[in-house]
Amino acid sequence: MEKIKPRTLSGFMELLPEAQSQMDAVMDVLRSTYALFGFTNIDTPVLEASEILLAKGGGETEKQIYRFEKGDTDLAMRFDLTVPLAKYVAMNYGSLTFPFRRCQIGKVYRGERAQRGRFREFYQADVDVIGDGSLDPSNEAEMVAVICETFRRLGLGRFVIRMNNRRFLNGLFEYLGLKEQSAAVLGAIDKLDKIGRDKVQEILTDTLGIPADKASELMDIVSAADPEAMLERLTGKCEALDRGIAELKQVTGLLPAFGVPEDKWRLDLTIARGLDYYTGTVYETAMLDHPEIGSICSGGRYDNLAEYYTDKPLPGVGISIGVTRLFYVLEEQGYLNEGVITAPADVLVLSMTDDMAPAIAAATALRDAGIRTQIYTEQKKFKAKMSYCSKLGIPFAVLLGEDEIAQGKLSLKNFETGEQVTVPTEEAIQLVRAALAEKDRGTVITER
Amino acid sequence: MEKIKPRTLSGFMELLPEAQSQMDAVMDVLRSTYALFGFTNIDTPVLEASEILLAKGGGETEKQIYRFEKGDTDLAMRFDLTVPLAKYVAMNYGSLTFPFRRCQIGKVYRGERAQRGRFREFYQADVDVIGDGSLDPSNEAEMVAVICETFRRLGLGRFVIRMNNRRFLNGLFEYLGLKEQSAAVLGAIDKLDKIGRDKVQEILTDTLGIPADKASELMDIVSAADPEAMLERLTGKCEALDRGIAELKQVTGLLPAFGVPEDKWRLDLTIARGLDYYTGTVYETAMLDHPEIGSICSGGRYDNLAEYYTDKPLPGVGISIGVTRLFYVLEEQGYLNEGVITAPADVLVLSMTDDMAPAIAAATALRDAGIRTQIYTEQKKFKAKMSYCSKLGIPFAVLLGEDEIAQGKLSLKNFETGEQVTVPTEEAIQLVRAALAEKDRGTVITER
Repeated sequence: MEKIKPRTLSGFMELLPEAQSQMDAVMDVLRSTYALFGFTNIDTPVLEASEILLAKGGGETEKQIYRFEKGDTDLAMRFDLTVPLAKYVAMNYGSLTFPFRRCQIGKVYRGERAQRGRFREFYQADVDVIGDGSLDPSNEAEMVAVICETFRRLGLGRFVIRMNNRRFLNGLFEYLGLKEQSAAVLGAIDKLDKIGRDKVQEILTDTLGIPADKASELMDIVSAADPEAMLERLTGKCEALDRGIAELKQVTGLLPAFGVPEDKWRLDLTIARGLDYYTGTVYETAMLDHPEIGSICSGGRYDNLAEYYTDKPLPGVGISIGVTRLFYVLEEQGYLNEGVITAPADVLVLSMTDDMAPAIAAATALRDAGIRTQIYTEQKKFKAKMSYCSKLGIPFAVLLGEDEIAQGKLSLKNFETGEQVTVPTEEAIQLVRAALAEKDRGTVITER
Repeated sequence: MEKIKPRTLSGFMELLPEAQSQMDAVMDVLRSTYALFGFTNIDTPVLEASEILLAKGGGETEKQIYRFEKGDTDLAMRFDLTVPLAKYVAMNYGSLTFPFRRCQIGKVYRGERAQRGRFREFYQADVDVIGDGSLDPSNEAEMVAVICETFRRLGLGRFVIRMNNRRFLNGLFEYLGLKEQSAAVLGAIDKLDKIGRDKVQEILTDTLGIPADKASELMDIVSAADPEAMLERLTGKCEALDRGIAELKQVTGLLPAFGVPEDKWRLDLTIARGLDYYTGTVYETAMLDHPEIGSICSGGRYDNLAEYYTDKPLPGVGISIGVTRLFYVLEEQGYLNEGVITAPADVLVLSMTDDMAPAIAAATALRDAGIRTQIYTEQKKFKAKMSYCSKLGIPFAVLLGEDEIAQGKLSLKNFETGEQVTVPTEEAIQLVRAALAEKDRGTVITER
């Protein structure tokens, strides 16, 4: 038979078992942290009607989307989890309890040009709180706590959440007489990180026709070395600006009560987050040692989650982690803790006789005790069996030969200590349990 | 703005939060049971090159598949987890350790005609063991233990695993002189459950031209009321048949050591499992009270997992649960335990003052203690706040008014007992923990 060369599409992450178990550990932390903050999980389809996903339409999204027809249905694969959330909330409005706090971790699809470290299928891990008509700004402060606790539990310490407020930026534009051009100015500021102050100033003056002194004043304000002092200086100059400043202060003022350490967040008046969607606090999260990676967790406050589907005002605030890319970066940079258990089992049971039944019975007893157990079933030399064990990093072997069977015992080998004891099954279970409980595997991420 | 009516495609399951948390509980059981048996998790892409997914080609699959072009790439959405596993093993052959024990729980896609209880996007939960060149039949017995333990942990007791062996069936066809037509005869037997003995016999005689006495003998054998006795009667009649019988006995002989209760499996010589892919033990699992549902967990032994991609013989054995359909059926039939916690949090913190900070600090302390906590943030009447709590089924509320704040305490209300106490935060944490630990929520499934 002619063979087809097995391959996985480029831009699609597919991990070997050890790396996959590290990824699973990351996912477990995300799930449990989101649950701790009282978010309920939802699971929406990967495929939706194109008119639903593209209700907003336009832009890069439409080019990147995987869209096709099946029968006479125009289908598309979701490109984020926010549009499906909007659909879900609008559709189930009467059945949900507001504020609706939901999390979702799922794959999304963007047919981008293939590029190292860029993925066409990737996991997003989202958290959003949606209000019915209104939503208290304290929820905007809580998101900072969610980000912080998530990374703390993952083991990442060297990061900072940079916060700004769109109401403040809009107030600032009004104060400077740039209100008419606010979308374009916002877009320019958004590029500061990438192209630098001079180039942004050039866009402001040459492309947008803003007088040089105004452009300069704007740049001085947003890139102020001490943003808090800048806010003080700006207070009282313009009502719209004051409202933005007050909201920024209200939100950041709650961070200590949320237990957010002072060094884990800072005001950064240059954070704009391009989308016109945001209306209040906006967040980006930077790895201190890898600013080149860009934001590893972003989001913000919005006023209308589902305006394309419903007249109901549904304000909310949310954050999103691009898990696949984050994992890729962590692996690349050697941040993954190899101490995290990647072995598929804690014990491998080896039969030294032709009759497998005693080995199977021992494995069954171990499993009944909650110990992850494999049975080595193949007729191989002892050395090959041991090599299987060590390749997978299984920490214990149970050996069952004629002697053990005659005594009603089993031999337990601890590969870490090299010790081997012959004991009754119940005692072996206790020994394995104790040894496993003692191991502190640490967090998924380790910073050296 | 004109609105687009929010909708989810038919054939795509999308659950409300409470049902979703029951589904999540099902998934947790599947994951943890598979892990207990030492299976390692993998995660392959939903999208693959069409030539990879359709390497085998032909049949219903090709009609149902979601396939499309993006740029100049011919893409398809996976329709099962077995083909991606074959690709994965063939591709990563050098990096894997054999026998390779993998599990995968993921969404698969089939553009079937929409029908009640039929899904176009559904989860499969698969377990397979792949050998390198050979694989001991004890692995075929272990699968029965995996199925049994999975359903036991889910809380389903009234099921039976029906087993047969393709080597036995092939031996039987040889013995009866039907070897040439074995594929067609197999296909006919496969329909027994659906169309009954008379119709199958008609196919055998009228369509396949098998003499009436042979057809009758075949039907008598496979539908024997006592299959074990039938195996005894057939022993020694034909070498090929003896090999099949021996293997059936070897595999079922190991079930007691695997702790499989006697009433949870039985021989059923009519089980054929259509696919020519299977070569040894085959399984189906029936719900005793709902035979109309068909098999809720099926699988079998095969000799060549990846013959379309590699010359390497990769025999294996696997089972698959169609989770979405199973969940749908369980919900329909009222099998889901409503006692399983579906509340998104254990505690709701309510501020009775304008300053949110003390409430936030209390929530932070609860979360630090690992208790799932929400803060009610909106300016609503007390009654509305309580209604939020009861709608979501959150079992505890923490109330923080001026009195509590002045005393450095908080009021903890237990909705189940109606009790309310005013205590320091640390004591409240202990009370909540103790109450949560005491609750035995039972299994996901309850049979009445």
